[in-house]
Amino acid sequence: MEQSLPYDNRIDSESSDQVVNPWEVSAKDGGKIDYDKLIDKFGCKRLDESLIDRVERLTGRQPHKFLRRGVFFAHRDFNEILDAYESGERFYLYTGRGPSSEALHLGHLIPFMFTKYLQEAFKVPLVIQLTDDEKFMWKNLTVEESERLARENARDIIACGFDVTKTFIFSDFDHVGGAFYKNMVKVSKCVTLNKAKGIFGFSGEDHIGKLSFPAVQAAPSFPSSFPHLFPGMDKLRCLIPCAIDQDPYFRMTRDVAPRLGYSKPALIESSFFPALQASGENGKMSASDPNSAIYVTDTAKDIKNKINKAKSGGHQFSVDQHELGADLEKDIPFKYLSVFLEDDSELELIRKQYGEKEGIMQTGHVKKRVTEVLTEIVERHRRARAAVTDEMVEAFMAVRPLPSMFE
Amino acid sequence: MEQSLPYDNRIDSESSDQVVNPWEVSAKDGGKIDYDKLIDKFGCKRLDESLIDRVERLTGRQPHKFLRRGVFFAHRDFNEILDAYESGERFYLYTGRGPSSEALHLGHLIPFMFTKYLQEAFKVPLVIQLTDDEKFMWKNLTVEESERLARENARDIIACGFDVTKTFIFSDFDHVGGAFYKNMVKVSKCVTLNKAKGIFGFSGEDHIGKLSFPAVQAAPSFPSSFPHLFPGMDKLRCLIPCAIDQDPYFRMTRDVAPRLGYSKPALIESSFFPALQASGENGKMSASDPNSAIYVTDTAKDIKNKINKAKSGGHQFSVDQHELGADLEKDIPFKYLSVFLEDDSELELIRKQYGEKEGIMQTGHVKKRVTEVLTEIVERHRRARAAVTDEMVEAFMAVRPLPSMFE
Repeated sequence: MEQSLPYDNRIDSESSDQVVNPWEVSAKDGGKIDYDKLIDKFGCKRLDESLIDRVERLTGRQPHKFLRRGVFFAHRDFNEILDAYESGERFYLYTGRGPSSEALHLGHLIPFMFTKYLQEAFKVPLVIQLTDDEKFMWKNLTVEESERLARENARDIIACGFDVTKTFIFSDFDHVGGAFYKNMVKVSKCVTLNKAKGIFGFSGEDHIGKLSFPAVQAAPSFPSSFPHLFPGMDKLRCLIPCAIDQDPYFRMTRDVAPRLGYSKPALIESSFFPALQASGENGKMSASDPNSAIYVTDTAKDIKNKINKAKSGGHQFSVDQHELGADLEKDIPFKYLSVFLEDDSELELIRKQYGEKEGIMQTGHVKKRVTEVLTEIVERHRRARAAVTDEMVEAFMAVRPLPSMFE
Repeated sequence: MEQSLPYDNRIDSESSDQVVNPWEVSAKDGGKIDYDKLIDKFGCKRLDESLIDRVERLTGRQPHKFLRRGVFFAHRDFNEILDAYESGERFYLYTGRGPSSEALHLGHLIPFMFTKYLQEAFKVPLVIQLTDDEKFMWKNLTVEESERLARENARDIIACGFDVTKTFIFSDFDHVGGAFYKNMVKVSKCVTLNKAKGIFGFSGEDHIGKLSFPAVQAAPSFPSSFPHLFPGMDKLRCLIPCAIDQDPYFRMTRDVAPRLGYSKPALIESSFFPALQASGENGKMSASDPNSAIYVTDTAKDIKNKINKAKSGGHQFSVDQHELGADLEKDIPFKYLSVFLEDDSELELIRKQYGEKEGIMQTGHVKKRVTEVLTEIVERHRRARAAVTDEMVEAFMAVRPLPSMFE
């Protein structure tokens, strides 16, 4: 029976050439993640041009570069969210972070930068879950350390510029209970052990905390988990911006939602931000290898050094570079530029002058430019983070109504 | 590795002649539960005379009839609780109920009657867990109905006479969260899926809520789950009076406690109260068969009718009864008397005059006497329950310190 379920991805852990789940992202032989295959297997949809045009029309502003450049590339029912929005209904945003490390890297910031844009563009409330319980259970951390990391990460999240009048940040250790716990239990009652093993690949040697956790991540998808925010708004739809490795949680959530009389959450999903050393875009950056990523705590010098060592698709000799152009698919500095450079026309110019033959740019030029761009982002983040006071963290995390959340 | 663990009772569900776990109690071919075998398998200890004498000495009062008559017959570390008590340390009591039915039967009241005695005799605080989440997950009940039943059952529990200055009653749907949730997660992290399957017999078709629940029942064993009651008293020991079918939960709890730096909870465990129709003492009474038990809502007439139909070990003809005496092992009315009759000497008289040859008592006499005793208990309970106001329920369930809990 299990194998007929659309969200069954046990094949990931057995025979397939790529593994994508919340704890592991890897392609065969260190190659590229095949996102088309992933979309097929997961059963989500590609975010096409017409949807992006529709976002532009509905919000009256240019779509975020992460939409224009395909960083967010897949979705589930995002079209329905737009239908509802167009007809005057509102929705809420839900995203989150597992606080496993002190300092975030740029890949961690991507969903938050994008979520901030969605909040501004659609004028909607946002809940941000800090899964300190998850990190306690999966990592070798104490409860206290997980809670501390959650607070530290909250500062980085707040530094992304969220609107405190529309945003509730909570940690699971703080917030699980009451209506939230009731939804956890309702979800758990709908998911058999076999199904959980199928979706998440749990084994008999995994502890039962891991088996409980998917219901914790599911609960914020339902407005009734936040009675202080959404009283009497049980039909309010939820849109979840996240990296596609989180899809298994929400396939499960979407499967159980109708049985609980709830709406399915919609999703808008990003690809993985490549590691500095990887060729192509294999896998996510690793928080445990400091050289694989640019951290928000890196100095300008750190960034320069890291970018200089990053895998390039350009040619060592300028004659080759001029005759062939760089292999942009293998060029990490260019990939970083294509995510973070704001100006579309400059990016197009670099694509031509560096990636095509007879261009005037070489690896060094691109590395210099991306170093400037990233240094600016990191320094801006650092200034913003330094300005986040304890009082601001308290304000974002206070259990309170958000009276102007749709304004 | 699993099979070497002392609390592994998977054999229950496979090859053994009796099954005892929180959801099933049955002996082979409907025969008697072999409690000696159960004690051996579970690894608890028989509660012997010397311990009961010690209770009498330490509390300065006659031990409860449930101790004198062997209703509570097994324990884990109860001797250590007495050692600590003797040296001036205090402890707290923890018991609970799964609120699956509106009205309780007399078997449900046994642990509460006994716990009330322990609270009075040792002058200690008590937490009572109402597992409305468990009943939602195991039974076909809504969350709201489970919560309602929890409140209704709280009235029956309060009617047993607990001291509101020493007693905190809570429902899981109300109380899970914060420090309690942290302990749940800590416990969950220490129990593998294989271990949980071994202890509780869960299968792949069981839902993950069932797998999460043992940690919910474990958490009240640790004083840090109740920061409003036991602040800074992390070493306070816990004594759990319960029926022996709950032992698997606490074997698990005791196994993980040292790994969390917590004390193991001690246990004092009762046998099962026999069903009215059963011969011998097979199994617990069933809440789903109203004729198998005396309910606290039964009228005097109901009780009379039920006792008259109960399985007797006496002889139909008075000549046989006089020559042989009744088979007390099969006599349900006598078993009920031996649990509920207060007066030891009257009980001994009946045992002789009914159970031995040449006695003067017949089945009818015993049934009449037990009907009187049970009617008095049920009517007293009903009066006490009627006197329990909503305010009293609120008072017992309020999250509050208990400043005179050890006085």
